[in-house]
Amino acid sequence: MSNYNMEMENVVKQIKKYNAKNIGLQFPEGLKIKSTAIADEIETKTQTNVIISGDPCFGACDVADSKMMDMVDLIVHYGHTPLPLKYKIPIIFIEAYSDIKINEVLKKSLPSLENYSKIAIATTTQHLQVLDEIKDFLEDNGKEILLKSSKSTKKGQVLGCNFSSIKNLDAEAYLFLGSGKFHPLGIHLFTKAPVIVVNPYTSEISNIKDLSDEILRIRFARIVKAKEVNIWGILISSKEGQYRFNLAKEIKKTLEDEGKKAYLILADNISPDILLPYLNIEGFIVTACPRIAIDDSSIYKKPLITPQELEIVLDKRKWDDYQLDEILFQ
Amino acid sequence: MSNYNMEMENVVKQIKKYNAKNIGLQFPEGLKIKSTAIADEIETKTQTNVIISGDPCFGACDVADSKMMDMVDLIVHYGHTPLPLKYKIPIIFIEAYSDIKINEVLKKSLPSLENYSKIAIATTTQHLQVLDEIKDFLEDNGKEILLKSSKSTKKGQVLGCNFSSIKNLDAEAYLFLGSGKFHPLGIHLFTKAPVIVVNPYTSEISNIKDLSDEILRIRFARIVKAKEVNIWGILISSKEGQYRFNLAKEIKKTLEDEGKKAYLILADNISPDILLPYLNIEGFIVTACPRIAIDDSSIYKKPLITPQELEIVLDKRKWDDYQLDEILFQ
Repeated sequence: MSNYNMEMENVVKQIKKYNAKNIGLQFPEGLKIKSTAIADEIETKTQTNVIISGDPCFGACDVADSKMMDMVDLIVHYGHTPLPLKYKIPIIFIEAYSDIKINEVLKKSLPSLENYSKIAIATTTQHLQVLDEIKDFLEDNGKEILLKSSKSTKKGQVLGCNFSSIKNLDAEAYLFLGSGKFHPLGIHLFTKAPVIVVNPYTSEISNIKDLSDEILRIRFARIVKAKEVNIWGILISSKEGQYRFNLAKEIKKTLEDEGKKAYLILADNISPDILLPYLNIEGFIVTACPRIAIDDSSIYKKPLITPQELEIVLDKRKWDDYQLDEILFQ
Repeated sequence: MSNYNMEMENVVKQIKKYNAKNIGLQFPEGLKIKSTAIADEIETKTQTNVIISGDPCFGACDVADSKMMDMVDLIVHYGHTPLPLKYKIPIIFIEAYSDIKINEVLKKSLPSLENYSKIAIATTTQHLQVLDEIKDFLEDNGKEILLKSSKSTKKGQVLGCNFSSIKNLDAEAYLFLGSGKFHPLGIHLFTKAPVIVVNPYTSEISNIKDLSDEILRIRFARIVKAKEVNIWGILISSKEGQYRFNLAKEIKKTLEDEGKKAYLILADNISPDILLPYLNIEGFIVTACPRIAIDDSSIYKKPLITPQELEIVLDKRKWDDYQLDEILFQ
């Protein structure tokens, strides 16, 4: 079991600095369980009124500034780092770093890295604070470490929608610290390099190749099925950091030029339920969060694909150039 | 089977009048099935680009003006009449009247109305166009008819959150045309008068007394259970016409004065899923749509009650004064 650093002292200090009276709190799903205890502590220590955002929240693409701007002076947003967006009220981002120990699992990863000397490190928000520990450990073991940040991501950080920090590095292999298949898959697809996945929760070391093959088989099946689709729904999210209306309109035009029908559908949260009423639509393209099509694949009956996958469906991209979707901020 | 009048000619005329290029469409759940056909027809007849709102929509409390204002010039909102709210872009409201025939079921209702001479009529949005037919029929049968409108509702119209149009009428009985239990229950509770329910879909005539007893038994059980709750969640909706932050704050203060704990939780759509993370909260008070606590009662495990029901829980209101919650616009 790991715990997370919710930085209460820092939060209290900043609330007092802003002289805020009403405070909004936002948590990713896994941290919502802590919300009432944190609300208690903040209200007691700052004499403020706390409002918890109960909507699902999957990233800094989805800050509740528009929804909460009339009710709070300040939002404390846990679990994500800021994106280059303009927020309507002050937002304090608290990364909520995991305190899980990684020294043993790091040692266990060394044999898998044996054949590589230039290694890039990547991880997700909750493990960013151990990046230096990983770097030091690998350097002590004779490796050269490559690290880079980007406009949307910190040094070594990958997001569900953004892999800028791992691209164009001269690395022979990648070490990814974290759980789940999506991020290491993205690193592998964007770099074609070996990715050693170090899972601090299970202490397992795995090579992305096996995971990647499994996911790509599923994607290939979806793309084959999608080739039969004549009536498409193009899904747009109203979440500020996922909103790609222009891309959706371009896709609509492309589909119409190919003789297909296409409907634009806007939604806050995309789920199988909200797609049920569109009986005549045979398949969907998601311009919202790139993880939806890949991670939630099994819960959608009709093909639901990314814009890059649509290019393969329409023979505008080769299967060998398969890429994950990304949302890049200018 | 009934159909609904989607007023295509009127919609096309208005879109042209506004010289709109991008059009948003919003439908209640039951009419979403028609959305793609309507999008097709509008795009063909007006050379515009249509965006369908895919989010759940239960009333004019929930117009997508904030979500769509950057993408469309105009929203066509089907199935509801406007509320006295300020919308950020032009909205065309299309009531989507049902074309179901009511003459036979009206005749069938006469014996139930036999003992009353002053009768008030009430119905929901989709049947407002047959109000005059009901009035004429009952007048021809010797009844005196009472009808009233309000700031939020048309003549004889009741909403899930507003019964102004049936209050303070000198009626001996009410005829409610429609389906469902919620609206006739509200009429009965606010007037204490007999309500004859005329269901045009099933051709059934029923007296609200039986329905009302059943629902009130369930509400009584919830209230009894809620008396044991020490830790409360107060739910606020971010939908413009359901947003009652001040009421929620007053309830929080009341509960704290009674030695209870209370947390404010803001959400767009309230559902059992979004309440799962709050393990320590024992019961919820809904300041959003009044129908949620009553109509969705069976899907919530923890007590979930209205502000008026909380007054009974806290011995500030007598069970004999049980009332439905209302959202009244100033």
